[in-house]
Amino acid sequence: MSGPEHSCGVLGLALHDDVAHPAYRALRILQHRGQESAGLSVFNGDSISTVQGPGLVHEVLKPRGLQSLHGHTGIGHVRYAKSANRSDMGAEPIVVETKHGDLALAHNGNITNAEELRRKYLAKGWAFLTDSDSEIIIRLLAMQINIHSDPVKAIRNTMAELDGAYSLAILIGNRVFGVRDPHGFRPLCTGMLDDGYVIASESAAIDVLRGDLIADVNPGEIVEMTAEGFRNHASAVSGDRAHCMFEWVYFARPDSVIDGREPYAVRREIGRILARECPAEADVVVPVPDSGRAAGLGFSEVSGILYEEGFMKSRHTERTFIMPNQKQREAEVMQKLNPIRSTIEGRRLVVVDDSIVRGTTLRKLVQMLRRAGAEEVHVRIGCPPIVAPCYYGVDMKSREQFAATGRTVQEIADLITADSLGYISIDGLVESLQLPASRLCLACLNEKYPTNIPGEKHRFQSQLSLDF
Amino acid sequence: MSGPEHSCGVLGLALHDDVAHPAYRALRILQHRGQESAGLSVFNGDSISTVQGPGLVHEVLKPRGLQSLHGHTGIGHVRYAKSANRSDMGAEPIVVETKHGDLALAHNGNITNAEELRRKYLAKGWAFLTDSDSEIIIRLLAMQINIHSDPVKAIRNTMAELDGAYSLAILIGNRVFGVRDPHGFRPLCTGMLDDGYVIASESAAIDVLRGDLIADVNPGEIVEMTAEGFRNHASAVSGDRAHCMFEWVYFARPDSVIDGREPYAVRREIGRILARECPAEADVVVPVPDSGRAAGLGFSEVSGILYEEGFMKSRHTERTFIMPNQKQREAEVMQKLNPIRSTIEGRRLVVVDDSIVRGTTLRKLVQMLRRAGAEEVHVRIGCPPIVAPCYYGVDMKSREQFAATGRTVQEIADLITADSLGYISIDGLVESLQLPASRLCLACLNEKYPTNIPGEKHRFQSQLSLDF
Amino acid sequence: MSGPEHSCGVLGLALHDDVAHPAYRALRILQHRGQESAGLSVFNGDSISTVQGPGLVHEVLKPRGLQSLHGHTGIGHVRYAKSANRSDMGAEPIVVETKHGDLALAHNGNITNAEELRRKYLAKGWAFLTDSDSEIIIRLLAMQINIHSDPVKAIRNTMAELDGAYSLAILIGNRVFGVRDPHGFRPLCTGMLDDGYVIASESAAIDVLRGDLIADVNPGEIVEMTAEGFRNHASAVSGDRAHCMFEWVYFARPDSVIDGREPYAVRREIGRILARECPAEADVVVPVPDSGRAAGLGFSEVSGILYEEGFMKSRHTERTFIMPNQKQREAEVMQKLNPIRSTIEGRRLVVVDDSIVRGTTLRKLVQMLRRAGAEEVHVRIGCPPIVAPCYYGVDMKSREQFAATGRTVQEIADLITADSLGYISIDGLVESLQLPASRLCLACLNEKYPTNIPGEKHRFQSQLSLDF
Amino acid sequence: MSGPEHSCGVLGLALHDDVAHPAYRALRILQHRGQESAGLSVFNGDSISTVQGPGLVHEVLKPRGLQSLHGHTGIGHVRYAKSANRSDMGAEPIVVETKHGDLALAHNGNITNAEELRRKYLAKGWAFLTDSDSEIIIRLLAMQINIHSDPVKAIRNTMAELDGAYSLAILIGNRVFGVRDPHGFRPLCTGMLDDGYVIASESAAIDVLRGDLIADVNPGEIVEMTAEGFRNHASAVSGDRAHCMFEWVYFARPDSVIDGREPYAVRREIGRILARECPAEADVVVPVPDSGRAAGLGFSEVSGILYEEGFMKSRHTERTFIMPNQKQREAEVMQKLNPIRSTIEGRRLVVVDDSIVRGTTLRKLVQMLRRAGAEEVHVRIGCPPIVAPCYYGVDMKSREQFAATGRTVQEIADLITADSLGYISIDGLVESLQLPASRLCLACLNEKYPTNIPGEKHRFQSQLSLDF
Repeated sequence: MSGPEHSCGVLGLALHDDVAHPAYRALRILQHRGQESAGLSVFNGDSISTVQGPGLVHEVLKPRGLQSLHGHTGIGHVRYAKSANRSDMGAEPIVVETKHGDLALAHNGNITNAEELRRKYLAKGWAFLTDSDSEIIIRLLAMQINIHSDPVKAIRNTMAELDGAYSLAILIGNRVFGVRDPHGFRPLCTGMLDDGYVIASESAAIDVLRGDLIADVNPGEIVEMTAEGFRNHASAVSGDRAHCMFEWVYFARPDSVIDGREPYAVRREIGRILARECPAEADVVVPVPDSGRAAGLGFSEVSGILYEEGFMKSRHTERTFIMPNQKQREAEVMQKLNPIRSTIEGRRLVVVDDSIVRGTTLRKLVQMLRRAGAEEVHVRIGCPPIVAPCYYGVDMKSREQFAATGRTVQEIADLITADSLGYISIDGLVESLQLPASRLCLACLNEKYPTNIPGEKHRFQSQLSLDF
Repeated sequence: MSGPEHSCGVLGLALHDDVAHPAYRALRILQHRGQESAGLSVFNGDSISTVQGPGLVHEVLKPRGLQSLHGHTGIGHVRYAKSANRSDMGAEPIVVETKHGDLALAHNGNITNAEELRRKYLAKGWAFLTDSDSEIIIRLLAMQINIHSDPVKAIRNTMAELDGAYSLAILIGNRVFGVRDPHGFRPLCTGMLDDGYVIASESAAIDVLRGDLIADVNPGEIVEMTAEGFRNHASAVSGDRAHCMFEWVYFARPDSVIDGREPYAVRREIGRILARECPAEADVVVPVPDSGRAAGLGFSEVSGILYEEGFMKSRHTERTFIMPNQKQREAEVMQKLNPIRSTIEGRRLVVVDDSIVRGTTLRKLVQMLRRAGAEEVHVRIGCPPIVAPCYYGVDMKSREQFAATGRTVQEIADLITADSLGYISIDGLVESLQLPASRLCLACLNEKYPTNIPGEKHRFQSQLSLDF
Repeated sequence: MSGPEHSCGVLGLALHDDVAHPAYRALRILQHRGQESAGLSVFNGDSISTVQGPGLVHEVLKPRGLQSLHGHTGIGHVRYAKSANRSDMGAEPIVVETKHGDLALAHNGNITNAEELRRKYLAKGWAFLTDSDSEIIIRLLAMQINIHSDPVKAIRNTMAELDGAYSLAILIGNRVFGVRDPHGFRPLCTGMLDDGYVIASESAAIDVLRGDLIADVNPGEIVEMTAEGFRNHASAVSGDRAHCMFEWVYFARPDSVIDGREPYAVRREIGRILARECPAEADVVVPVPDSGRAAGLGFSEVSGILYEEGFMKSRHTERTFIMPNQKQREAEVMQKLNPIRSTIEGRRLVVVDDSIVRGTTLRKLVQMLRRAGAEEVHVRIGCPPIVAPCYYGVDMKSREQFAATGRTVQEIADLITADSLGYISIDGLVESLQLPASRLCLACLNEKYPTNIPGEKHRFQSQLSLDF
Repeated sequence: MSGPEHSCGVLGLALHDDVAHPAYRALRILQHRGQESAGLSVFNGDSISTVQGPGLVHEVLKPRGLQSLHGHTGIGHVRYAKSANRSDMGAEPIVVETKHGDLALAHNGNITNAEELRRKYLAKGWAFLTDSDSEIIIRLLAMQINIHSDPVKAIRNTMAELDGAYSLAILIGNRVFGVRDPHGFRPLCTGMLDDGYVIASESAAIDVLRGDLIADVNPGEIVEMTAEGFRNHASAVSGDRAHCMFEWVYFARPDSVIDGREPYAVRREIGRILARECPAEADVVVPVPDSGRAAGLGFSEVSGILYEEGFMKSRHTERTFIMPNQKQREAEVMQKLNPIRSTIEGRRLVVVDDSIVRGTTLRKLVQMLRRAGAEEVHVRIGCPPIVAPCYYGVDMKSREQFAATGRTVQEIADLITADSLGYISIDGLVESLQLPASRLCLACLNEKYPTNIPGEKHRFQSQLSLDF
């Protein structure tokens, strides 16, 4: 509920039949990863055709557009961020023509050395038509394909230039490639369908096509697929796994399986651990819908405190006009959530939410619960305090925005007007993920970044310094 | 999830300030009661101005339109049903000019003697400009106001002509009236705000304006309100209460309070009773989101079976294009719900849903769960079998469409491919509502109609026949 | 160019086949008579179906809508004026149900006793659902049909109540009626098609259907048509013909034939007479496009002065946003017209335009011509000075707006910065129309109104006073 | 009327104030050169911001978008052709970032060696993001700027690579460049405004800004402008002038001045010469509006035959839906033009049109005139028979489409069912243009192409062969 905005989702299909309709269905399942624009590129046997634009998947990929896309391989994209000021190439996939034919690319992540690469290749005389990381990646890839013609070698050499987070779907003729950066920040998985293969940001996209999850793409790995089969290629790049913990905590659908762990199960375990780490005397556990439910159930299970729905969440509220004044703007959160009185009134509540970024929404929820008659409001958060920016694709850019910056937990509790506030510990979160901390990116929690970021500490820096 | 389509919502405001913005916010909260059209009428001190049209509230009531509506009294409407073939007057409120000034009306319900009244007044020489019940009501009302000039008397006399279900918001100058039919089929309540009064189909609309629920409008009652206060008037009409049980079971928001009972609490109690009436041997209780959650929690509480979220429900799926073939159409339910494997796999499930009308969606859900690895799927339904049409405003018109028509419970279980199926009993439902059966409309369950419907039995008919 | 806004257009079709597509084509030809809304009502054998709404004909009557309209009789409408504040029934046709079935009506004109009729029937207890004259007419008509059942008698009795200007298309089952007020203010004509009959505001609508003009509907006449044939009925009402001279001067398409006279031919004759009445020493005659061309050619023919196109008129300019400041707003006329230098530069010009209402546009044109190098600009106007409001359907409501109010011709010339200004005389206009002045409405020119208008003189008033 | 579709228009502004609003007004004046998409790029002091997209100028450049474009230099574009299959970069200007900053380009014309250049640079390893000529040009330009940094030198070197037709507006920081290919196929002119300078495809765009035409850009010339002044630079490339005669005959606005000749004056002279070359016995000269009027007046002047408007041209007809069948599709031309009977009936007509490409429209017009009572229809065409495709930006691609391919003039007359048909001769056209044939591109008339086109003759080929 209170988490940051989502990033992007990618998809690739290699089938014995047209990909347009299955791709449409799968992209709609990935819609939560990006609502600003959508696109689909299909290889028609000769060149790549694309339909893309601003809007939700079903607004962009309309029947007439889909019918124009004939081909058995294709890649798709949903995007959160609006592109800035250049021509309207915010929508992906991005497509280029090379002497070896057309290439298309869909990208989820953030290239941390993008500016450096841009400057390097501007200096070499390149001209960029867009502001996006994706143009950098596809132009590097095109350059490599021009040199080597072998796509796998070209992808490997391209990866050697890139730092940061990237999960890619690449369309080269009748081959679809899935590529994941050596740290595996963002998810990417492969699946088998009745008539072919699929790669997707999340396994729920495979489910909707009635397919079976094969495996996650390993960090640093290149997966090549056609309708007939798939092959895994190692890349030269290496790095320590650094899966973004936020995918399980908030981003990914609860029903997907990300690197072997299902967000629903993780969130449930978070709730259990949270109940042990930050117990509360209360009458009822109330989740903030929708993402707080699993943790709420876990909290209830361990604490023995009754679990109840305490908020009604309205649908139909996505696109509203800009409210004319502050009072009306504040009213907007009340449009989305309204307390269920039988749950709240006269009760001591444990409110379980996924995370706190700014704290403004949660403050309003606590006050709403008090007006609805809550006796006490104890807030429990399934993610440790966010204290550092993300450079790997999550829209949390500056420390000033965080509730936890320069505040103790008690001060944050005061900020959100809660009777008590408890965060899961970093160790607790790691435990719930059942993955070693060394395989996770926890940079926004502990300021230890898995890659070199100018002005930030590397996660091995402290240990290294111990060695000397 | 599997319930019928919603009907309509009405709203009335009498404030010391402009009603447009509060009305906008309240109507959005009532959006679930009708998504086809929306409208708002405001008395500007001289006449009534209206903005209305097809679409969601935020699509129809845009800033420019709202800014054009100045006035301290107003009524609003959200509507489900598309008007048929006459000019586009499907949207409400409906407004007429009389010698005493403008009148506006917003209506939720269904007038069962509409055709009879239409024929009666056509025979008297009237000409109707629309197909809607609402024109009949407002024209009768205008006729009465022309005769009596006293609005309350006029409303009383109008009510004397109407049969069926109607909850009305009426705007006459700086007075707003709330009217509820003598059976009280559809909800209507009054609330107090900081700067005035409100009537609304559901109390959640009062909450969003930070107001307090005063009371439900009594069946057969007329509530008159200005910014300064409100008065209740009895009407001449009388009848036995017959609150539509479906409001609590499915229609109304769980956070509203309808005739003193909160749907969330009712649904939770339904789950408890269902667990006693139709127990199941299972590992986990899984609700069909969103409306099955409360009953699922109640079932879990009584049965002691673990409650888990078992489905991910997608947002952004409302308005899709018509799928080109049957296979793809079937795929649509999979766009909305996807199983959460950690909850499902290898488990014996109790799936709790609010109701079964046709059964087609539930059949697909059961099959989806089996594909996701469910060992057993036991379906429990929080509403007894629906066997008879509704004439009071719910879109369930013909017996052929019902899964329960001509089928035993076992046959329905076979239809939906469930391992077992249990419905709450009518007595159980009544018990969960904590209202005597005599105060409820259960006609779609027991074929005993609270009013005379040609071709159907009256609910007192059997008793009466015993007398002779 | 400088004339007032258009009013409305009506259409009726009775065919052996579906009317939807021919009606669409004919309404587009009448588009110049109203661009605010459009509508089409078709009798489907049982009731009347309607598609209507705001926008141009091709925006409102889209393929899917047209395909839903099956029936061999229908009426259509294009409308200029936006309806005021009641529910969105601005679009016509307006449809009512009576005990004898559905009626539909499309109206061009203005009922001068509308307020009186409204008060009369409000007093009798009627309730009006709209602000429009058309509701008054159709409700009177419905009342009469209820009494007499004979449509012709009903129409006759309705006409007996109406004052002012009205050309009506009425749809009653498989019969279409054309009705024209006793003065014949607005045009209405009948035509024969390959498979049926048509009535239309202008004969160009008959041409586009490859039909033949039969005749104008006589003032006070009722034409009844089916696919098989047509009949003319006299009405009880009588009055002197008072055809609006503005139809020929500006409103009607030049290619239509209105009451036996083609606007193009009339305008050409206006030019000839204007050349005789207001000669000019000049090098070239320049029309203001598009409506000034015919008069320009006539002026050139008689004066012997060369005729040239002097302005380029842009297309694609209809719907612009509101310009942010006055300077930019003034620039808008330059978006539409730009001088052709080879015609203008160093030349003495006679600029011929159809009429002057406010004079603001013409002032800008004169200045534009001077900037383009015109030596002299002599303005000649094909319509005498407009000095009085129209109550019969032309949007010229108040004397303050007219350039000619309180100004001599020389003062108007100064206002528009012309070297000289000449208007055709009323006699000259009448001569060009080849109709006796007594058969024309010249009220906006001579303040003598063909009907009683409170506060205005009747055209026979002066003569009558001579008798005593 | 019957000419081919337009191509594109370009604009550049360097002012002391924001360019957005003046650019909007000027682009609307150029709207006739392209209705598919529009765009505007403005240099904001640091980088280039762009608003662009599909639609008419006023649909794309809405107030909010314009307000976001702050800067004193900018270039704009209107475009006819929809881009094909790559990402939606059909709209221009096209913008790139280089190490020296952003560049933007707007292009009117067609690069005849585009495929060759594309292959050449693909072979060198380039990757193209679009299908358009414009990307080729801007990438060559960016390459040259990277090498030389001097924009003028860069433009010169870019021009050295390009064959074919190009009139360019280029934005480099606070400098705007206008570039015209060495043959000067497409128009381009410069103008002085109150607060700066402008380049535009047509001088009418200067008029609307109340500026003065300075001069046409010479073929092969580069014009550099800032708000303070402008400079002309010669380019290395040279070639014989080859102005497209179609600009005067049909494309350009009659009120523009193109290479010193005003289309209105040229068309008028065409009419005069046509009257001498192809006289006709007739009663009246009728132009096909709008582009046939000037020639019609010239024909009338020389022949002494009366000039009359014979067709009413409807507005509001641009965007129609696809008509369901052939009969209805044929009816579409009747939606646009309708005969004026007083001009036509019983008359022998000379119908003057600008050109014949396919002849289908003209055939329908002739038949329409006969149905309207024309005694004889003599068609006179202000452009010699079109027999060869255009490679320089006019949408006439294949010989099969031309009425004149394989037909004598008599056979074309039969095709269009005219009593007689006369085309102006090539010599007559050249005379009317008052430019030597050697300075015109007449390739579509005489198959002699000003540049090397594979499979076509060069215009000096025959002469050259005489030398040997």
